[in-house]
Amino acid sequence: MKGQFAGRMANVQKSFIREILKVAQDSSVISLAGGLPNPDYFPVEQLRVAADKVLGQDGANALQYAPTLGYQPLREFIAKRYAERCDLVIDPDHILITNGSQQGLDLVAKILVDPGDEVIVESPSYLGGIQAFSMYEPLFKTVTLQEDGVDLAQLEVAAASERAKLFYALPNFQNPSGITYSAEKRAEAARILRNNNVFFIEDDPYRELRFLGEDLPTLTSTSRENSFLLGSFSKIVAPALRMGWIATTPKLLDKLIVAKQAADLHSNYITQRILHQYLLDNDLDAHVGVIKAAYRRQRELMVSMLEECFPSDIQFTLPEGGMFLWVTLPETVSAMDLFDEAAKRNVVFVPGSPFYVDGGGQNTFRLNFSNTDEKLIEEGMTRLAQALNKVMLN
Amino acid sequence: MKGQFAGRMANVQKSFIREILKVAQDSSVISLAGGLPNPDYFPVEQLRVAADKVLGQDGANALQYAPTLGYQPLREFIAKRYAERCDLVIDPDHILITNGSQQGLDLVAKILVDPGDEVIVESPSYLGGIQAFSMYEPLFKTVTLQEDGVDLAQLEVAAASERAKLFYALPNFQNPSGITYSAEKRAEAARILRNNNVFFIEDDPYRELRFLGEDLPTLTSTSRENSFLLGSFSKIVAPALRMGWIATTPKLLDKLIVAKQAADLHSNYITQRILHQYLLDNDLDAHVGVIKAAYRRQRELMVSMLEECFPSDIQFTLPEGGMFLWVTLPETVSAMDLFDEAAKRNVVFVPGSPFYVDGGGQNTFRLNFSNTDEKLIEEGMTRLAQALNKVMLN
Repeated sequence: MKGQFAGRMANVQKSFIREILKVAQDSSVISLAGGLPNPDYFPVEQLRVAADKVLGQDGANALQYAPTLGYQPLREFIAKRYAERCDLVIDPDHILITNGSQQGLDLVAKILVDPGDEVIVESPSYLGGIQAFSMYEPLFKTVTLQEDGVDLAQLEVAAASERAKLFYALPNFQNPSGITYSAEKRAEAARILRNNNVFFIEDDPYRELRFLGEDLPTLTSTSRENSFLLGSFSKIVAPALRMGWIATTPKLLDKLIVAKQAADLHSNYITQRILHQYLLDNDLDAHVGVIKAAYRRQRELMVSMLEECFPSDIQFTLPEGGMFLWVTLPETVSAMDLFDEAAKRNVVFVPGSPFYVDGGGQNTFRLNFSNTDEKLIEEGMTRLAQALNKVMLN
Repeated sequence: MKGQFAGRMANVQKSFIREILKVAQDSSVISLAGGLPNPDYFPVEQLRVAADKVLGQDGANALQYAPTLGYQPLREFIAKRYAERCDLVIDPDHILITNGSQQGLDLVAKILVDPGDEVIVESPSYLGGIQAFSMYEPLFKTVTLQEDGVDLAQLEVAAASERAKLFYALPNFQNPSGITYSAEKRAEAARILRNNNVFFIEDDPYRELRFLGEDLPTLTSTSRENSFLLGSFSKIVAPALRMGWIATTPKLLDKLIVAKQAADLHSNYITQRILHQYLLDNDLDAHVGVIKAAYRRQRELMVSMLEECFPSDIQFTLPEGGMFLWVTLPETVSAMDLFDEAAKRNVVFVPGSPFYVDGGGQNTFRLNFSNTDEKLIEEGMTRLAQALNKVMLN
């Protein structure tokens, strides 16, 4: 209507998490809320050297408009890493560089989702994904996340629907739950999607942050023709670079290129060049190894505090990697009440209900163990235990 | 439909210009096609120093996730420059940093345009704008561009329509035509839009590149409550940074923030920091002065070649700034035929018809005078004149 916002704007809200993060910027607050990596492990000096090299040696070219697909050698690096680490052969020309994997979610939804199409999400699911998809006015359908991945019987029913367009999943150390799909569930979920002609977004930003157990194959590897595999340098190099990617088939890529051109022509090119120079001159495996060792220690401390200082009738996931774990309180206890009580003690986390598109999860919450250190985790978890005791006594 | 792309993808095509640019990458081709700035004037060394400083002094903070709105001091710089140069008071908190102004076009269309809404564009109009809007399935309405700006009578009729949602214009040195709105047409067009409750995108990436005549006020200055003022550092610093902005009202900004979060959380933060450091440590006016002097020489050479070497029955615009001029051939002569003939001589430009959403313009084309030097302009225009003679003899 004249002078009015588009209908799609009725469906979306500001990110509750980003609102919490504003509170968390106060340095007296211990934040277990955000999905932020630990800045102590950003390769600051190496990126400074890389920037110096690119601008010193090829600055004029590195500052000009550039191809929509992204810097070819960067795409080759990504393809090579899939081949080496995941036994997955991807043509570098089938990779599109995006502004973080968040833009990948937006672009894929843009080329696929008509109003009323069914988008199947895990329950709980990543808030940024829900937000990106909401813009295209889908009907959300949910499938429950079990300890070893999606409930396959529910996925089978959801995928069979005539309007099922897309399934969105994070099979490794899911945000928010920390859950990882078993090898069996990966193969079976991929089969269900392929057989039902449903597109699949495999959002995999945490893959490299596995600190326990063995790497498992991507779902995409057994379901290439309908899959979009999303990755990111945010968690293994630095988020401010806004560097992610989508790997998919030529047919699907062709439409993504059109959407990317319309969205912003191409991703920041000087950053692509600097990032590539950094990757060329440094040992990414060694760097990621340092991050994983730290996150493992932080996760183990958090788990031991949950075991020792919290009531025995709470439950929590035991992530094998990533940045989050997920706590379930007794059914009668409200995570929002806990949030209020914890905030009084200058500790914040993210209550679970925003991660559920169809309600529920009032007794759940997400804890981040990456963006802090062991001292603050100990102090934060101690205060959180006190807050929970207060809430459960009421 | 299941397994199919969204309906909106039927409306959009790959950018014809970006396809031409691929051809133009061959170094034996003289390109008068792209909308690229001259890389000789990129402040490469100054950006290298700025990157070194930011990463050396505050690297960890500069590499972390950051606020959606953008880096506060960069927004303050933009606001200050509007106040000083355009007598336009804008609160820095009403500015959103985007990935070039192209993302501004996408985000504004996303929050405003429902399928079937009428989007009014200049005829001819910027291809990237048409492409961005097409994603939201509008009906395009066109208003003719005259020598001194939009045809006001046509705008009045178009804006009065019940479904008129948005008018999109580039009032300074328009892409593709090089035309600039007169002061009178600015005031009158702003009044028409306000009175008819039609939103307005004032796309102003070339404002600072005025090398003849006097600066004129923004349309936004007389029509604040329904306007989005878009700007960019691409033409005055460097395009690879992908740094643009939208200035608007708090009410409109509120929805843009939601759309920006869903699109990519926030723009590249390390680049915002480096760009701001560059702006702090250097004299932008002096830098832009060097660019303008060069573009003026290049534009004057191109115009003198058009006057001296081309048939007298062609017409062309005389831009007071920016990067483009616009040629109209006799009605019976096809710019596509000229394109083919010129390509044989290794010269490319952009034929005019893609800039017209409702057909026409077959005898028009766009010439870029920024992304080359005087020697190549002379050689390119000589070959183009030969190609035109060949076409007109047929």
